[in-house]
Amino acid sequence: MPNPMPADTIALHPETLPRLQQASTATVATLLFKRGYHNAYVQGTMPLGAGKRTLVGPAYTLRYIPTRPDTDPLDAFREPDHPQRVAVEECPKGAVLVMDCRQDASAASAGSILLTRLQVRGAAGVVTDGGIRDAAGAAALDMPVFAAKPSAPTNLTKHHAVDIGLPIACGGVAVYPGDIILGDDDGVMVIPRHLADEIATETIGMEEFEAFVLDEVKRGVPIIGLYPPTDPDSLTRFAAWREKTAAERP
Amino acid sequence: MPNPMPADTIALHPETLPRLQQASTATVATLLFKRGYHNAYVQGTMPLGAGKRTLVGPAYTLRYIPTRPDTDPLDAFREPDHPQRVAVEECPKGAVLVMDCRQDASAASAGSILLTRLQVRGAAGVVTDGGIRDAAGAAALDMPVFAAKPSAPTNLTKHHAVDIGLPIACGGVAVYPGDIILGDDDGVMVIPRHLADEIATETIGMEEFEAFVLDEVKRGVPIIGLYPPTDPDSLTRFAAWREKTAAERP
Amino acid sequence: MPNPMPADTIALHPETLPRLQQASTATVATLLFKRGYHNAYVQGTMPLGAGKRTLVGPAYTLRYIPTRPDTDPLDAFREPDHPQRVAVEECPKGAVLVMDCRQDASAASAGSILLTRLQVRGAAGVVTDGGIRDAAGAAALDMPVFAAKPSAPTNLTKHHAVDIGLPIACGGVAVYPGDIILGDDDGVMVIPRHLADEIATETIGMEEFEAFVLDEVKRGVPIIGLYPPTDPDSLTRFAAWREKTAAERP
Amino acid sequence: MPNPMPADTIALHPETLPRLQQASTATVATLLFKRGYHNAYVQGTMPLGAGKRTLVGPAYTLRYIPTRPDTDPLDAFREPDHPQRVAVEECPKGAVLVMDCRQDASAASAGSILLTRLQVRGAAGVVTDGGIRDAAGAAALDMPVFAAKPSAPTNLTKHHAVDIGLPIACGGVAVYPGDIILGDDDGVMVIPRHLADEIATETIGMEEFEAFVLDEVKRGVPIIGLYPPTDPDSLTRFAAWREKTAAERP
Amino acid sequence: MPNPMPADTIALHPETLPRLQQASTATVATLLFKRGYHNAYVQGTMPLGAGKRTLVGPAYTLRYIPTRPDTDPLDAFREPDHPQRVAVEECPKGAVLVMDCRQDASAASAGSILLTRLQVRGAAGVVTDGGIRDAAGAAALDMPVFAAKPSAPTNLTKHHAVDIGLPIACGGVAVYPGDIILGDDDGVMVIPRHLADEIATETIGMEEFEAFVLDEVKRGVPIIGLYPPTDPDSLTRFAAWREKTAAERP
Amino acid sequence: MPNPMPADTIALHPETLPRLQQASTATVATLLFKRGYHNAYVQGTMPLGAGKRTLVGPAYTLRYIPTRPDTDPLDAFREPDHPQRVAVEECPKGAVLVMDCRQDASAASAGSILLTRLQVRGAAGVVTDGGIRDAAGAAALDMPVFAAKPSAPTNLTKHHAVDIGLPIACGGVAVYPGDIILGDDDGVMVIPRHLADEIATETIGMEEFEAFVLDEVKRGVPIIGLYPPTDPDSLTRFAAWREKTAAERP
Repeated sequence: MPNPMPADTIALHPETLPRLQQASTATVATLLFKRGYHNAYVQGTMPLGAGKRTLVGPAYTLRYIPTRPDTDPLDAFREPDHPQRVAVEECPKGAVLVMDCRQDASAASAGSILLTRLQVRGAAGVVTDGGIRDAAGAAALDMPVFAAKPSAPTNLTKHHAVDIGLPIACGGVAVYPGDIILGDDDGVMVIPRHLADEIATETIGMEEFEAFVLDEVKRGVPIIGLYPPTDPDSLTRFAAWREKTAAERP
Repeated sequence: MPNPMPADTIALHPETLPRLQQASTATVATLLFKRGYHNAYVQGTMPLGAGKRTLVGPAYTLRYIPTRPDTDPLDAFREPDHPQRVAVEECPKGAVLVMDCRQDASAASAGSILLTRLQVRGAAGVVTDGGIRDAAGAAALDMPVFAAKPSAPTNLTKHHAVDIGLPIACGGVAVYPGDIILGDDDGVMVIPRHLADEIATETIGMEEFEAFVLDEVKRGVPIIGLYPPTDPDSLTRFAAWREKTAAERP
Repeated sequence: MPNPMPADTIALHPETLPRLQQASTATVATLLFKRGYHNAYVQGTMPLGAGKRTLVGPAYTLRYIPTRPDTDPLDAFREPDHPQRVAVEECPKGAVLVMDCRQDASAASAGSILLTRLQVRGAAGVVTDGGIRDAAGAAALDMPVFAAKPSAPTNLTKHHAVDIGLPIACGGVAVYPGDIILGDDDGVMVIPRHLADEIATETIGMEEFEAFVLDEVKRGVPIIGLYPPTDPDSLTRFAAWREKTAAERP
Repeated sequence: MPNPMPADTIALHPETLPRLQQASTATVATLLFKRGYHNAYVQGTMPLGAGKRTLVGPAYTLRYIPTRPDTDPLDAFREPDHPQRVAVEECPKGAVLVMDCRQDASAASAGSILLTRLQVRGAAGVVTDGGIRDAAGAAALDMPVFAAKPSAPTNLTKHHAVDIGLPIACGGVAVYPGDIILGDDDGVMVIPRHLADEIATETIGMEEFEAFVLDEVKRGVPIIGLYPPTDPDSLTRFAAWREKTAAERP
Repeated sequence: MPNPMPADTIALHPETLPRLQQASTATVATLLFKRGYHNAYVQGTMPLGAGKRTLVGPAYTLRYIPTRPDTDPLDAFREPDHPQRVAVEECPKGAVLVMDCRQDASAASAGSILLTRLQVRGAAGVVTDGGIRDAAGAAALDMPVFAAKPSAPTNLTKHHAVDIGLPIACGGVAVYPGDIILGDDDGVMVIPRHLADEIATETIGMEEFEAFVLDEVKRGVPIIGLYPPTDPDSLTRFAAWREKTAAERP
Repeated sequence: MPNPMPADTIALHPETLPRLQQASTATVATLLFKRGYHNAYVQGTMPLGAGKRTLVGPAYTLRYIPTRPDTDPLDAFREPDHPQRVAVEECPKGAVLVMDCRQDASAASAGSILLTRLQVRGAAGVVTDGGIRDAAGAAALDMPVFAAKPSAPTNLTKHHAVDIGLPIACGGVAVYPGDIILGDDDGVMVIPRHLADEIATETIGMEEFEAFVLDEVKRGVPIIGLYPPTDPDSLTRFAAWREKTAAERP
């Protein structure tokens, strides 16, 4: 089959997004690697602003191609159906606007006004492999925004918004509409939608195990035998740790 | 208007393609520059094989995005509707198959079997900003093929053929279906379709003038005053040269 | 005319620099784009240190070329006419020292001692497409410093200061002495001197309009019709907003 | 197991190298892809000189790291145990000297004198992701040489030969001593030694099938159904073609 | 001599590491430049987290090459002798783990669990020209960590740990085991072990002189004549400054 | 001294250029390395066309900076003092026009008409780290032309000719007017003018020795002891070889 099944044919378990909200991109990267997905990390994007919540949501895609004088005059945005403006107004609540800028951050793909509108409309966040202008404004939003870097030039300089809702490339990774986007301080992972449920489920035990390992390491336990737990005693201690931490939760 | 008019609404003068066949990419680059089109040269592609005819024809586009294990197993090509295979079978006679590989030539976008099929079917040629495998076979074809470089890996390694006939990026340039592609030893220019007639017409005089200038330079005339012809005498000599060379033609 | 008119033949309106001090690089990028200046953003530089004032001032240029053993021994700086040292001592009060390092940040173009001297002498700031050493010291200055990144090696490793006051390239942009430099969290724009007055004037209304739009967006107004204001009602509301905010100013 | 089994524990079938001599890198790339080896193509190297035989042989590795004044004075080569010189004298007959230059071709990794010595000693060829000096001399050898590009500077400028016979990186690919190197006009593939026998065997049928497909394409048969042969009739015609071409061989 | 003497044959003066702890990479870069070491700065790494102590210690090296399916399955870490895990358990107290990732940060070379173990074991710090996953956790450690950038993918994606204790390249610089690593906000310098004592000694006077110069500059003294002190009066003032500041120390 | 002495103060021995005409860039690279000149190879340029004579001559420099709409309209070349046109008309007989394009070959720095004019005027050749348009015409000239690659766009697209006769960077190397340029199939070396005489003299013996070594290697002599000739017998054989080849010369 050349392309994945359409997003609307792949229902998500109601706990999938909440579970991923508690997961890290590092964990998800490992779980995807395990399934043969070695190229799922969006190269070259970082969060604008520190201390934002983890970004989770289905991808809503916007594709840019290079500009031309006929397609990108300054009054291009006056068109009511300009795809960038339409994307900002139609990106579903809870979705992540993912933009394909061909990894060219020499111009912006959006600025803080559009990003604020997306936040007001309830978008989960934004990922672009291009630049963001008024990056300080973007960093100040509650909504997480991942970009290659701040970049002052208007997108008309380099990026012509051409269509919405198609499969795209972002940071060297394929993104199909509805794929689940996860972003934290290590950057952004793209989870193929049909794997999201099982990966979300697996993150729970894995994050728990890593928390246990970190506790062990802090008290001086060596890595070998513990991580991975090739020493059976590590698993025994993990079981005890789980009971204890479960008991300690309110 | 966000996008150019569809190709089928922009008829070409019957002499446009034959005229461009006699033109150079350098000349066309200048004529496009004059109209404000500063980004029309496909960066990073060169002809495979020497001594090919100039490539001219309308663009027929194929878009690749990065591969994934689910979309690109080795038996992907068994799908009867695999876009790369469909493109090879449906590229119109006289058209140029232009492929968007996101300027990533670490894998091939096609090989000599598909290129041979395109030649048999009457395609004008191929332009890709990715690699070509069995590049020696490609170089041996009559049909001109422009690529970033030879590259042995199958496209399944990096490039997932996702759709046909959409606007794409190739070598950093926007290519709309029907745009006129021109390729020679200096690489490839993309002529917006609505400008092709007037540019083709202008190339005639310009190529003629450059031939005159080259003759002048060879006989020792300085550049200044001649190229451009700010010295009115240059234009007089050009007029005489045109008469003489016209008379010499069979 | 091959080059712009000399800076001293282009007087600036006394309000131009103060007006630009209130403007953003994003706004200026758009105003330059409108005039056909598509390449005015200094690629690859960011401010060292957070929360600095906007950088504004005329460019004072220093050009580096690659080093050689004969031109760059360690005692090169003992020469009283070493161009880097001269530049630091002669950069006019209020000017911006702009350095051409050929976008090579593998070595420094200056360090915190020279930068401190510039601050003491009243320079408006510094822009380099090379590195800065003792970047922590540079970040702690009041004077804004824009650079590609911190870089410990002395400039003698890579950058030979060769002349002062010539047109240069910085971050891929032409910088003529006297051009107006504007820098904020989105990076640095170069405003051709002959356009500075009119651009500064235009920024006032544009920044005001963007502030209005942001207010509108925050209260839930959609982008389309508002930004740009294709809906006449947007302009009516803008007029009211201006009156109201003007009235609220002390 | 962290590393592959040592080369001397993995015997090669006597027909493996001869079979690969008839194979193309494109075919081998596909056969490796099929087994999950997606990164086996040495990025960024091309043959010096045209019309060389296919390069086949086991890898003999030489590793370079960056130079330092203490380790790389001009008389470094006077050391009788200089690893580059030792490699040239000890590379086994039939082996391929593969050099790790960290993909830095700003200096040479060898020149025509050393390459001639390797040819005299019976080496199968050379692969480097650095430069080659006296590249015209290298191109004139019978022995195939693959490099990033010609580069005049001595290796002392950038590349310190540090050891022989260790696993290395070359052009972004892992090369273990004894891995089988295959090079043609499309570049170089690295075949893990333990897979060489089965891949060599599979190339026979695959090259034959591709020859048949090319014949079919030349006579006008469409790709779909033929390549891959999803139409059973393609396989029938292939069987007939094989009989016919077998009969035609002397 | 092809390689430097082994580290255990080059004893360090007991004050060398403490002296370097007070020095800056900028100063050391200049002192190495003076001795002909022009390539000693690890290109492309920055500290994770702000406000860390200066990193000082002898290099303990770990080398990665590209991964392969046979050498890097997900259970690779179950091997008790996996070099990355062994390195984390055997890196000596006070040493700096330096990793050669071929300047490829598209995947991690370590994560916060291993880094925490290194901190618990008393390592001085970590330098990698690859990525770090769970970079927020790494930034929160007391131990300084220098990396190209955060990167979520597991090292199995790109980096196969192949050996420990060999000379490596890191950020384009040769690193021999036992070389002294110095890292601060300007990045990382590699001091050849045999030069560490004399360089450490020289840093004292040089840091002192730079502190004096900075004081002078702050009070308005021009650079020329002062830095370097070609005006003899500068040296006189420096002598007085030293006495005064010495007297002011507790 | 910040800059080298002016070219007209450094006379060349009359045999220097003829001697270099017989030398290779590889040999000169080694001789410059020996003198501490580690960065004298123009990175990223290759000869256009095969089988040209070695390029030798003093540098005549032309500097480009990025274009702007005001400085680079299409009629820019109508200016009688356009530096590119002036350079072509004033480049001295026997000199090499060296152009600084900031290593940006996305546009041309010259085309075959200007190059032909240079050939007619007796220039020794051309070196640019930008592109060349009508590269096929350039390749067909007798005069050697070194460039990054063919590139169709007019220089107005990217390169504004700003001045003549200043020190420049070309391919990452400092080029002072009058420096001696040497180019062959391995690319281009820049010889500081004050070293040209002694280097030219040394090349004679070194090229002779390399010819001897190649003869020895071809008859089966191992490298070690021969190259460099640490075995005294190598020098004895070299002496005999010199006598014999001298006797064989007509």
